[in-house]
Amino acid sequence: MSVLVVGSIALDTVKTPVEEHTDQLGGSASYAAAGASFFAPVNLVGVVGEDFPESEFEFWKARKIDASGVQRVPGKTFRWSGEYAWDLNTRETRSVALNVFEKFAPELPENFRETKFVLLANIAPSLQAHVIDQMQRPSFVVADTMDLWFESTRPDLHALLPRVDLLILNDSEARQMTKETSLIRAGRAIRRMGPKYVAVKKGEHGALLFGPDDFFSCGAYPLEDIHDPTGAGDTFAGGVAGYLAGRAGGEVDFAQLRKALIYGSVLASFNVEAFSLDRLRSLTSDEIDDRYEMFKLMSQFEVLE
Amino acid sequence: MSVLVVGSIALDTVKTPVEEHTDQLGGSASYAAAGASFFAPVNLVGVVGEDFPESEFEFWKARKIDASGVQRVPGKTFRWSGEYAWDLNTRETRSVALNVFEKFAPELPENFRETKFVLLANIAPSLQAHVIDQMQRPSFVVADTMDLWFESTRPDLHALLPRVDLLILNDSEARQMTKETSLIRAGRAIRRMGPKYVAVKKGEHGALLFGPDDFFSCGAYPLEDIHDPTGAGDTFAGGVAGYLAGRAGGEVDFAQLRKALIYGSVLASFNVEAFSLDRLRSLTSDEIDDRYEMFKLMSQFEVLE
Repeated sequence: MSVLVVGSIALDTVKTPVEEHTDQLGGSASYAAAGASFFAPVNLVGVVGEDFPESEFEFWKARKIDASGVQRVPGKTFRWSGEYAWDLNTRETRSVALNVFEKFAPELPENFRETKFVLLANIAPSLQAHVIDQMQRPSFVVADTMDLWFESTRPDLHALLPRVDLLILNDSEARQMTKETSLIRAGRAIRRMGPKYVAVKKGEHGALLFGPDDFFSCGAYPLEDIHDPTGAGDTFAGGVAGYLAGRAGGEVDFAQLRKALIYGSVLASFNVEAFSLDRLRSLTSDEIDDRYEMFKLMSQFEVLE
Repeated sequence: MSVLVVGSIALDTVKTPVEEHTDQLGGSASYAAAGASFFAPVNLVGVVGEDFPESEFEFWKARKIDASGVQRVPGKTFRWSGEYAWDLNTRETRSVALNVFEKFAPELPENFRETKFVLLANIAPSLQAHVIDQMQRPSFVVADTMDLWFESTRPDLHALLPRVDLLILNDSEARQMTKETSLIRAGRAIRRMGPKYVAVKKGEHGALLFGPDDFFSCGAYPLEDIHDPTGAGDTFAGGVAGYLAGRAGGEVDFAQLRKALIYGSVLASFNVEAFSLDRLRSLTSDEIDDRYEMFKLMSQFEVLE
């Protein structure tokens, strides 16, 4: 089953204490689509400018990502630049130039509108709602969000939440959104705002999943060397949605969601091993499956005897 | 198999944003012994003053904790007072009066020296070493430590580490001790300092376990209401050591250590539900086993189908 991915496509300039790379492929939809593509065919929707490298369209084609929903329009591609602190845990945005993204209103090609699985990568909630408006009865909607939308567009976000099956956000955002200090209370409170399921990402500490009757907690894959954390959350969301649409065959229950979270974590753990999407470009399904097995070995405590 | 527990015994005054309780049973050995006692007979070593309530000796007796190693000496019992911030994540020590604990040099009763399992609850590393000196070939030594000992008594701590089978410390301490930002690197670096196994406690995010060839990660039990975090780490250490000595029958391999970490987390999760050791006073084995099963349900992602 295919998954529709809508979000930002950018050219990022990222500086860590060790390296700096300029105008590399970035944006929430780029990471999410690549992550999802390991499990399911992807229909990608976004916008780029005249300066966007044609080679990235070839990358998408090679990964079975249908980029016919990516419009190339006059002007420059969205650019973001950020710098990470010494521990790679905090980052500062150095500059943002929305460029062609400023007027982006996602228009779905006709043949994309029947896609059953939707991943609304991180963009303004009003744009995310605009995507759902164009869909014909999607069976499962995943939305990624961030703190940027909590204040300025809070009404939009609250209108969106009941239309979402799985909302993904990070721990500090979950606390901020609910004013709860306990992540358990925060996750449950967000569920009451509409989404059937809520996934809370905790970076190096893994993720939590809240459902109507169930709760799931998983660690993060242990990495000694992180090169570029950019896009980890987007790749996670892509892996989750891709797994559900593809490998799980579109069947979404709590057991499948648990596995989807692990696959999302596996994808994100690979992504941070190199700058931009470079690690995803060379990643293989065997590597993913091996790491999934490692994940099992490091987190199960009963089955192994 | 019994477990020897040595550490501090105190009367704590604890203030949270909601409640304040005065002169309640506290100290690393009190929590650790109570935690361990759910799985194994405990031999307790510590010191109290003339003002220490006789009723606590009765509590120990009821829990099969042999307190013949607890000396009652002239003077006042060790007192600690702390106040928690609004989110219960940070605390400030309001006052410390070492009293009879100031001159504490643990002396093991003759019949305690052959105990095979040892839990050195959090006290000065020199005192922890002094306990090992008196033991006859203990088969497994667990030591809990904290940042307090990193600067003032660092040589003592480094001398102790090769004599320890399992070192337990928390995440910020692991980072501080190794100057590593990655907990994975930190855990591995501490193993190279001597202990065969290292457990890193991460509070609400669970715990990590590092062994010669293996790694294990578990979440924390999800609690909505925490009343008093005091002693959570000590209770965790007690549960780990007690499980290994008792339920695991003294067999220590990585599979048993995984389970021990879960039981330690379960014990700690109960402990924080009430002030002082109050929740442990009413806790039953059935409650522990039920929560262990819940832990399995919330963290396994493959066995449940």
